[in-house]
Parts: sequence; C-alpha cells; structure tokens
Amino acid sequence: MRKPQLLIFLGLLLCAMAGKAQTITSPNKNIVLKFALNDKGTPTYELTYKNKPVIKTSKLGLETKDVPSFIEGFTISDTRQSTFDETWSPVMGEQKNIRNHYNELLVTLTQKAVDNRMLNIRFRVFDDGLGFRYEFPSQKNLNYFIIKEEHTQFAMAGDHKAFWLPGDFDTQEYNTTTSNLSEIRGKMKAAVTPNVSQTTFSPTGVQTPLMMKSKDGLYINLHEAALVDYSCMSLNLDDKNMVFESFLTPDAIGDKGYMQAPTQSPWRTVIVSDKAGDILTSKLVYNLNEPTKYKDVSWIKPVKYIGVWWEMITGKSTWAYTDAENIQLGVTDYSKLKPNGKHGATTEHVKEYIDFAAKNGFDAVLVEGWNVGWEDWFGKTKDYVFDFVTPYPDFDVKELHRYAESKGVKIIMHHETSGSVRNYERHLDTAYKFMVENGYNAVKSGYVGNMIPRGEHHYGQWLVNHYLYAVTQAAKYKIMVNAHEAIRPTGLNRTYPNLMANEAARGMEYESFGGNNPDHLTILPFTRQIGGPMDYTPGIFQTKISAYNPQNTSFVHTTLTKQLALYVTMYSPLQMAADLPETYNKFMDAFQFIKDVAVDWDDTWVIEAEPGDYITMARKAKGKNEWYVGAITDENPRTATIKFDYLPKGKNYIATIYADGKDASYDKNPQSYTIRTMKVNSKTVLKQWLASSGGAAISIKEDTKN
Amino acid sequence: MRKPQLLIFLGLLLCAMAGKAQTITSPNKNIVLKFALNDKGTPTYELTYKNKPVIKTSKLGLETKDVPSFIEGFTISDTRQSTFDETWSPVMGEQKNIRNHYNELLVTLTQKAVDNRMLNIRFRVFDDGLGFRYEFPSQKNLNYFIIKEEHTQFAMAGDHKAFWLPGDFDTQEYNTTTSNLSEIRGKMKAAVTPNVSQTTFSPTGVQTPLMMKSKDGLYINLHEAALVDYSCMSLNLDDKNMVFESFLTPDAIGDKGYMQAPTQSPWRTVIVSDKAGDILTSKLVYNLNEPTKYKDVSWIKPVKYIGVWWEMITGKSTWAYTDAENIQLGVTDYSKLKPNGKHGATTEHVKEYIDFAAKNGFDAVLVEGWNVGWEDWFGKTKDYVFDFVTPYPDFDVKELHRYAESKGVKIIMHHETSGSVRNYERHLDTAYKFMVENGYNAVKSGYVGNMIPRGEHHYGQWLVNHYLYAVTQAAKYKIMVNAHEAIRPTGLNRTYPNLMANEAARGMEYESFGGNNPDHLTILPFTRQIGGPMDYTPGIFQTKISAYNPQNTSFVHTTLTKQLALYVTMYSPLQMAADLPETYNKFMDAFQFIKDVAVDWDDTWVIEAEPGDYITMARKAKGKNEWYVGAITDENPRTATIKFDYLPKGKNYIATIYADGKDASYDKNPQSYTIRTMKVNSKTVLKQWLASSGGAAISIKEDTKN
Repeated sequence: MRKPQLLIFLGLLLCAMAGKAQTITSPNKNIVLKFALNDKGTPTYELTYKNKPVIKTSKLGLETKDVPSFIEGFTISDTRQSTFDETWSPVMGEQKNIRNHYNELLVTLTQKAVDNRMLNIRFRVFDDGLGFRYEFPSQKNLNYFIIKEEHTQFAMAGDHKAFWLPGDFDTQEYNTTTSNLSEIRGKMKAAVTPNVSQTTFSPTGVQTPLMMKSKDGLYINLHEAALVDYSCMSLNLDDKNMVFESFLTPDAIGDKGYMQAPTQSPWRTVIVSDKAGDILTSKLVYNLNEPTKYKDVSWIKPVKYIGVWWEMITGKSTWAYTDAENIQLGVTDYSKLKPNGKHGATTEHVKEYIDFAAKNGFDAVLVEGWNVGWEDWFGKTKDYVFDFVTPYPDFDVKELHRYAESKGVKIIMHHETSGSVRNYERHLDTAYKFMVENGYNAVKSGYVGNMIPRGEHHYGQWLVNHYLYAVTQAAKYKIMVNAHEAIRPTGLNRTYPNLMANEAARGMEYESFGGNNPDHLTILPFTRQIGGPMDYTPGIFQTKISAYNPQNTSFVHTTLTKQLALYVTMYSPLQMAADLPETYNKFMDAFQFIKDVAVDWDDTWVIEAEPGDYITMARKAKGKNEWYVGAITDENPRTATIKFDYLPKGKNYIATIYADGKDASYDKNPQSYTIRTMKVNSKTVLKQWLASSGGAAISIKEDTKN
Repeated sequence: MRKPQLLIFLGLLLCAMAGKAQTITSPNKNIVLKFALNDKGTPTYELTYKNKPVIKTSKLGLETKDVPSFIEGFTISDTRQSTFDETWSPVMGEQKNIRNHYNELLVTLTQKAVDNRMLNIRFRVFDDGLGFRYEFPSQKNLNYFIIKEEHTQFAMAGDHKAFWLPGDFDTQEYNTTTSNLSEIRGKMKAAVTPNVSQTTFSPTGVQTPLMMKSKDGLYINLHEAALVDYSCMSLNLDDKNMVFESFLTPDAIGDKGYMQAPTQSPWRTVIVSDKAGDILTSKLVYNLNEPTKYKDVSWIKPVKYIGVWWEMITGKSTWAYTDAENIQLGVTDYSKLKPNGKHGATTEHVKEYIDFAAKNGFDAVLVEGWNVGWEDWFGKTKDYVFDFVTPYPDFDVKELHRYAESKGVKIIMHHETSGSVRNYERHLDTAYKFMVENGYNAVKSGYVGNMIPRGEHHYGQWLVNHYLYAVTQAAKYKIMVNAHEAIRPTGLNRTYPNLMANEAARGMEYESFGGNNPDHLTILPFTRQIGGPMDYTPGIFQTKISAYNPQNTSFVHTTLTKQLALYVTMYSPLQMAADLPETYNKFMDAFQFIKDVAVDWDDTWVIEAEPGDYITMARKAKGKNEWYVGAITDENPRTATIKFDYLPKGKNYIATIYADGKDASYDKNPQSYTIRTMKVNSKTVLKQWLASSGGAAISIKEDTKN
C-alpha cells in the first residue's frame, strides 16, 4: 500500500521550499504537525489535535560532549513527505490485526558551521498521535559522538492534570501521583517512597509513559518507542512554562549516550485523543517498532500460569533454604546447613502446584527460590550470588522435569540476577542450556537492587543493551522472557516477541508490602502498559495477607471481583493466577473465570475509561467465539454502563457475570461477590454496580441452546 | 616439613602475652618483624634487615564505608607462630625447584567497641623479605563490607633512591623515573607521558612493584602478591616523612573494594637484601600465591614465537584491511570495501611467517589484525568492535590451520578487547571454541583504551576479576593466555600457570613510538618482573624503524646484541623474536642465539646487577646441559665481569659469545657485533665490554670434543 512514486515527486516539490515551515497532517486530518527552524536555526515543532494545541512550539536538539552539539545553526536542506499504510499481525496481542497508517515528514538539516554536518528528523503522524526521532546519517563529518543530553521539548498547552511517577534512573515501583503539572514540585517529596534501588534527579522530574488530561478535554500521553542501545528518557518539567524536556539516564561518569553514525534515537511519542479509550487502544508505539526479526515464532505462545511465589511475597514461606548468613557460592556446603523449614520451592510442594495447574488447565508453574544463594544477598549489591543452575538440596530438577512433563505442565525458570549483570551474562548460555535440557521454555528474570558495576543505572544505555541481549540470546534457545525490574517497555515485543512481559511498575507484590492505591489499576493501562504487557500477577483472592503470615498487616486494595476484571483490563500474553491453590480451592466458582479467560485476543474494545477513575473493556478471545469483559473502578463505587455492541449482530450469548456483592468494598468486605448468568446480544446494555475499588468480570459464550 | 605440634605449643605460650609486642625473624635470622598495637589500639609493624631499618613503625588498617573501620581500638586476643618449609616445582619458570620457607605470625585482633569484631593479620617472614595480609574471618559481626581505603603504611627509613612509575589506575606504560623519594613530587609532571588511557591520582603517587635503594646499601622492593578480586594497590608518599601508604584503585563511584567475610586482602610484600641480585632471584611473591588449582597442566608449555606484529607497530603494514571509517560489525560489508593494500594478516603473508617459524624451530606465529573491526575503533571506547571469530576476507582460517599444522607450527590467536570487557565476555566461550576448532592453543589478549563501562579502571576490582575470569575460562579449553594492558602480575601464574605472561609495562613497541630509555631494561627485572613474566617481545635487529616505515623516525634504544641478551635477562616462558623474517635472514649468525636460547629453566644465577645500571645473569636450560648468559648495561658502556662458577666443576664447555662490536653504541652504531667462541669452565672469569646501551649474550654447550 506504499505509494513511493507519488511521494518522491512530492518530496522534490517540497525541496524547493527548504527553509520554510513544513506541515503534515494525520491521515484523518485531525492532527497537524508543524516543523520550522527558529531564528537561531534550532529545529522546532508543534502539534494540534482538532485545532486544539497539544504541543506548543517546542525545540529539538541534542547536546554532545566531544563534537559540536546538534542544537542550532541549522538550515533545511531537504524535506520529503511520504505516506504508509499496512496492516500487520502481532504474534500475540490485543488485536489480531494492527493498522500502521501514517504520513511521514523527513527533514534533512544541515549545520553549515560544522562542515555541513547533517541531521535528519523523521516525523510520523498517525490518527492517534505523533512519533519522531533523530537520525544521524553516515557522513564524513560524523562518526563517534557522545550525548551529554537530549534537549527534546514537549511544551504543554496548559497546566494539565498528570498521572506521574517521580523521575528515577533505577525504579518505576512508585504509586502514581495525580496532580496538575504545577503541583508536581510540591508533591514530589511525598511521591518518592523508599525502594531498594532508586535515583531521582529533579523536583520536577517524571517518568514516561506520562499520561495527562487537559482542561479542554484532551488526553495526551508522552513516551518513547523502540528504545534500543540508548538511555531511557525521563522528562523534566519547567513548571513556570509547562515545558517538559527530555532527561536521559546517565552512566557512571555522567554521559548519556555513546553513538556511532549511522544511528538514530528512539522514537519520541505523543498519543492524543479527546477520548480516553483511544489512548488505551493506540498501537502507535508498536507501529514505530520494527517487524519481528525472528524467522520462526511458532515457539512463542501465550502462557497462563500459577507459581510458587505469592507465598514468599507474603512471608508464608521463603526463597532461602536456610537462615544462614555469609553464603558464598562454591564455598558454602548446603548439605551441612540446617534447613529453615519454610523453604517454598521443595520438590513435593512444587508437585502440588503442578497437580493444581494440570487439573485446572494452566500452562505452567513458576518456581522461585529453587536455586542456591538466596540467603543473604538482598540489598548487598554482591557480585557473585547465583549460578542459575544449582538447585537447593530439596529441589529435584530431574524429577520435577519428569513429573511436570507427565502432567503436561511446564515449569517456568526463575533467574534473579541480583543486579549483577556481568555475573548473569557469564552464566547466561549455560543457564539457558540448562533450561532446554530440563524442559523449561520460559524464564522470569529479575534485576533487584543496585546495579553492578556500581554507578550504572537500571535505565542507562549499558543496561538497556543488556536487557535486549538477554532476550535475543534467549531466542536462540527458544526461550520466552518475562523481565522484572528491567526497563519499562517501548514496544520492542513487536520485534522480539519472546519478550513476553515486563514488570516495570508497582505490581501485585506491593499489596503485600503495604498496598497499592485503589486507583492504581485504573491508571496503569494509560501509563505503564502503553509500551507493552505487564506481568502484574493478578488473581489474589485472599486479600488479607495476615491469613498467610500473621506478622504481615498488608491487605490487597481491591475487591475479589476486581482481581478477576484485571485479566481483561491488564493485557499480557503471560498471565498469572497469583494466589495459592489452597485459596483457589475455597473459591472455585470465582476461580472459574480465571480458568476460562483468554490471554491472547482477536480484538479489544474500550467501553468506558477515565484514567484514575475507571476502565471497562471487552476483548474477543483469539480464534474463539468468546468474549470477556472487565470493569474496574477506583475507591469510588460506581455503576458501569456495559455495552455489548461488539458482539455479532442477531445472535444471543450467555454472559456469566462475576460482580461485587452489595456489601462489598475493598477495605471492609473485599471477598463479597455474586455470580449470575444472563442472556446478552449486541443491543444489550448492562448497568453493573462496582464497589469501592471493586470490579466486574464477564465471560460471554455462544448460547448453544438458542 | 611443617612442624605444627611444636608451634601450637609456642602459640599457646604467646597467647599469654597478648597485648605485648610480637617479634618473629626470618629462618636465617637476618630479618626481624615487630608487631605491636599503638596507644590508640592501631596495629603497627616494623622491619629490619641485619639490624638496619627497612620499614620503620608503620600503621596498618582499613577504612570502610558501611561498617566501622578496621583502624583503631584493637586489642590482641591471640597470636600464633608457625614455620613452613617446602620445595615446589613450577610448571615453567626460572628455577626447577623453589623453596618456600618462612616463619609465620598470625595475630588475631579484636575491636571491643565493634561487638568484639575480629581481624587477623598474617605475617610471613622469609629470608628474602616479608609478606602480610589482612584476613577477615567469618563471624556474626561481619558479613558484607565496602573498603573506602586501605591504610597500610610502609615508612621508609630514609630518602631512598627509587625507580618509580607515576601511580595510575589505567596504565603502567611509563618510562621509569629514577630519583630520591623527596624528588618524586618535582619530577611527577615530566614522568606522566601521554597514554591512550591514563588516570593518575597524586603528585606523589607511584606504582608497585616499587624498587628502592637506601643510602646504607639496602635494596628494597614493595609489591603485592595474589591480587584476586581486590583492587590494585598503588602507593602514595608522604614526602615529608617518607611514609608510603596504600592507595587502592577506585570504581566508578569511588569505592575501592566489595568484600564478604570470610575473605582476605592480597599479600603486601617487602623484598629486601643488601645484594641487588637477591631481589631478582626472590621467589617471595610466588611463594605467597597458592599452588596450582589445575589438575592437568600437561598442556601448558613454553612457547618461542614470531609474529605478524612488528610490521604493524612500525607502520609498515596495518591491522586494518581497509581505510574505511564508520565500521559497524554485522552492518559493514567488507566485501564491498576497498582493501588498503597494506593489510599484514593475509593468508599468503602468514604462510611466509609459518615457513620461517618451521625452518627455524619456532613453536608458533602470532597473527594480529586477522579479524574484522580494526578500522576505526582506536581511542573511541566503543562497545561493540570485535566478535573474535570473523576473519577479514583475505585471511583464510581453515587454510592457515591446515598449513600451520602441516608445518608443525601453531598460530597464536589475538583478541583485542578494545577495553569493552562485557563484549569480550559475551563472546569469550564462542571465541575459545573457535580457537580449539581451528588449532589455536594460545591467545594474546589486549585491553587498549578506556574501560567500558566508563568509570571503571584497568586496575579496579571489577577488571581484576575479569582478567582472572578470562584465564580460568581459557583453562577449560586448554588455552594459554598472554594478556596485554591488563593488571601487572602478582605471582598468579603459580596458581593459574596458563597465564603465560603479561605486558603491563612499556614493552618493545615503545621503541617504535619514540623509544624506551637506555636504562629501561636494567630496571624492569627489579620492578615489573617481580610479579611475573613479561611479554616484552625482544629481538629487534633492525633498530632504525625508518627502514620499515620512512615516516617513523623512532629507533631502538639498544644495540643488537643487547636485544639478544634480553632473552636471558627478561624471563618469560613465552618469548618472541619480534623482528621481521626479512631482517633475520640478513643476520642469521646473530639470529642463531635466538634459535638456540631456552625459554624454560632449571636454574638461574645473577652474576652482577645494579638497578638502572646493569644486569648479568646466567640460566641453565630446562632438562639440558646448556647455559645461557645475558649481560646488559644502560647508556654507559661497561666491562661486565662474567663468572661461570655455576657450571659443573671439572668439565669444559664451549661458549659462543655474541658481543657488541668495538665501535658499537645504541644511538650511533647499534648493529655492530662480533661472534666468537671460547672454552670455559667453572673457574673462567670473562671480562666482556658492553657498548652504550649494549649487551652480550652467551650460549654454553658441552664441549663434546673434550
């Protein structure tokens, strides 16, 4: 569907206009991008949506360390416009088909004072927003260069309401603060809650994806796409003028990027709409990533799993086999240590999980704490903690391989790197081979704690490079990856679809560490999930953690049915039922929804959504005539208006509705729920009450009697 | 030969004296160590040699970052003395048998104010000096800790003459400055010559091994032994009091060591004698290292080699295949690039080297510049330069494997890491496997340029860990390692004998980069070589570099026969004949010495030596009745007095003497030499004139006619 001939002609026409402002619009004309040079020869852009300002005139450029900066003195030496329209199918996803349709403006700039050095800026305007990036062509005057800072501005048109996390080089595990932009500075201190590894950088620094809502009703999301071998972009706000500017993650000596031409920056993205739901269904970030680089993707499949995990998170059992200290791998003789009696990952206990998974149709069982070294590394930034292949004495790898295989269940490997990425890379091939030999085809990796070598950050170029290395090496062994505490995603799972999911936000685990805010899950789809799937690990039915560990007074800040709804609202092709089998066995009627719900989809519809308040979504199961609906609310009870107009017309369906009980609320009565069925068709509109931080989940199947 | 019973009894006796000063002597009583706590409870020691002060009262201790420091408030809770006497045989070396004989004092100190935390200091007093280290026992009050600085003092007894290099975290490639200690500050600026990676730290900072000579005739050498997973120690001089203090190499955030008990520091060493030659024959550093950890060492063998190397060093040919820039591995298509016509490592040219090696009895041919990526990485601290397995289009790996094998010659692999150790480690196993598959059993590795990740230094703990990792991984593939630009050795080749040699000083290559000082080679055996073999790469006969590259005005700062003598004075089990075959073919008579000389030895004798002035040594070839003598001098001509009293008594031998011509001098007539034979026996004393920066080399074989 590309129309190159026409556009090259158009490009040549525009060439003659070099030096003037350039304008392109989205295919539907709603979005208009203007590019111009200011009087200093600095590139600028502005963006409107239906004639409303989205980005006011904003500067572009990069400050370099060793060569003259890409900041000013530019002239336009060429501009080319083109259009692109294709539809592609992700290996797994929220939609079977994704349309990638944009108009492109490629501006070639020349710095005369720097020996006519060239810089390209490529803009792509979609119906749902803008992507642009810097491109550094191969040329005589540019080879290696070091980025001191990227100065990409996003000038906001007002004091928007923002859903923000403190800007940090090492963690995204913060509750979202909701405030006007002008209030960020005042609320920053309270927003920066403790984390085992954290490095904030500015009283007005925030992370992306950043979700905003303007007073004139625009929903605006800022993020980046295709972050490859470059530092993560945070945003620093000039809160007098409401201008965000890119703030890259530095390395140990303060540099922010080591580049060699030809190369390019990641895409900077602005998703915009007057409907909140359009943000949730935007595929702009994926469209800006490359098609998959893998020839064979047949081994990449969605996974629904349970795991030996929540019991450790709650403190009911332990990752560690002993309570010993001074553990040194290769020196410590575990056979001489006294077991602590609380170790979770024992052969017998894992078999119980395998039995439960097999009985209830789960694909896999995650097992953490299976390998030696867990006793005393936490928070120590220790270089050599794990070897990724040596099990504790009570974990029989061969026997569990045999047993799981006999039950048709996979075990998911766990690699906690302890932040020691060199140690991980040294063991990576051996660890992956060990997985293949023992029947594992997926790994959950972790990057807890400060990075080694010290001074490097989780979101710096050095680590960004590592995370992708771990994924592409895994692909050589046909291993799927679920990386926790790594960089937040930027759509790379389009290109590398064995990157199944990331954590990269406050996940369910925080419900056992003091709790997530009731609005948390109404925000994450607008922020964290813009870049890719999150392994949030929903499905906690036992919302009082003290039931597992009397010392733990935390509780889950949702109702039970809101947990069910998350399987629809929190997309991931890798989806956990995180609670313990002993608990699910007590709630088998509600658990039925988790057993039924799909993890891969043909299509997705947002029925209602407002960031921070509520989300109601429907999805059609991949290749099946089954639909699932999830509706959630924040601390405010509400009545969701659930339409079914995505159902094929003229047919009847049976909906099974899992809803909060009348007396339900997340803080007082979270486990009150009702289950009912009703007939629905495409015309049905259901008014469904949701409790305080409550939710509803609906499964819809064909009415075979009708 | 250990006498544990007696010594435990002695230990118990001494126990009662806790708190008092402790004294132990060397087995021959010449050296006396006194240990005491000062009035603040800080450990101190002093050392004498034949009643002359070597180290005046000096403090010991470590400053830590996260736990209370190991500085003061100590009491002595236990002391134990023991003795040890054994003789061991290195896999390769200067002597067939090495005696390890010392008296040991183990002091257990307790810090009452730190919950009775314990620190051990272990002293070993040999006839040739002292080794001591800090030991951190496993205990309840000590697990992880971070070293901010080690404060080990070496209080000199006077303003000694010192042979020093500027203290630096990244390079040892300096000419030695000879001055009194008090003059270091004034001479520092001139001493710090440019290097592609260098980080000095103090106007009175110097490196170890540090050689000194006192006004009362003592030769004193300070260094360290068994540097494993710890930062390299430099020395910082308090030049008012002539007190050196340890100065460790920091990481990117300024920390100097990440430790977990039980652990220990490297040994700090003081070699002392009133004879300079005793410094050269000291095996104290090796004795403080552990016996080999390898069960099978049969694959580790001495190597005499030539190489496609000096022609690139001089600029006659190039490592790179093209003159292109913007090279990106996996992107650049070399088949489309124009060769520069000067590439050294071509199949045909390497075959010429193989032919020469086979004809002249060399074991191996080093080939640098065989693999893609050499064009434009230098000095750029680029992350991904080399993959270590992809040859240039004109280097046929398989054909050269076949050809070399047919000639009974090995090719030595070359791995330039470009300082990107993560990239090297990612490729390490693949690269070693590639070597095994293609018949390579030895690798020269290089660490040119600043380290990646930036902020880490060549001599920090992070890299110290890497260098040993590369060696131990190589051992798994039975590969010998010759690491350049890595840390200077500390005797680890005893434990890991496949660490054949290091560069870690200004090698021969600097003769092509402006030159080494004429006294350079009379100093290196007293400094650099105290820790282990150096791959100096002697044997340059064409001393005018312009003969190879008209643009290069450098010249070798020795005579031709001094080059021969280096094969004796510069010990290495991996010894190169560095010049080009075309040159050796012109000097086959002199080249005969290089063909004959051994690279592994039964025994070694220092006949005359004075650091900075001259060295005359004799060695007996391993397992043969052949002896080789090398005599060198600095810029001053001299007459060496060469004894032969190490020859078996009562037998006659034929000595072939390669000597400077009468008119020879390094700067005016370096290629003037004579070769003569004479009969010698154990009583012979030869007066042999040496030219300015000249030398003499003698091979001694049995007189079969007699």
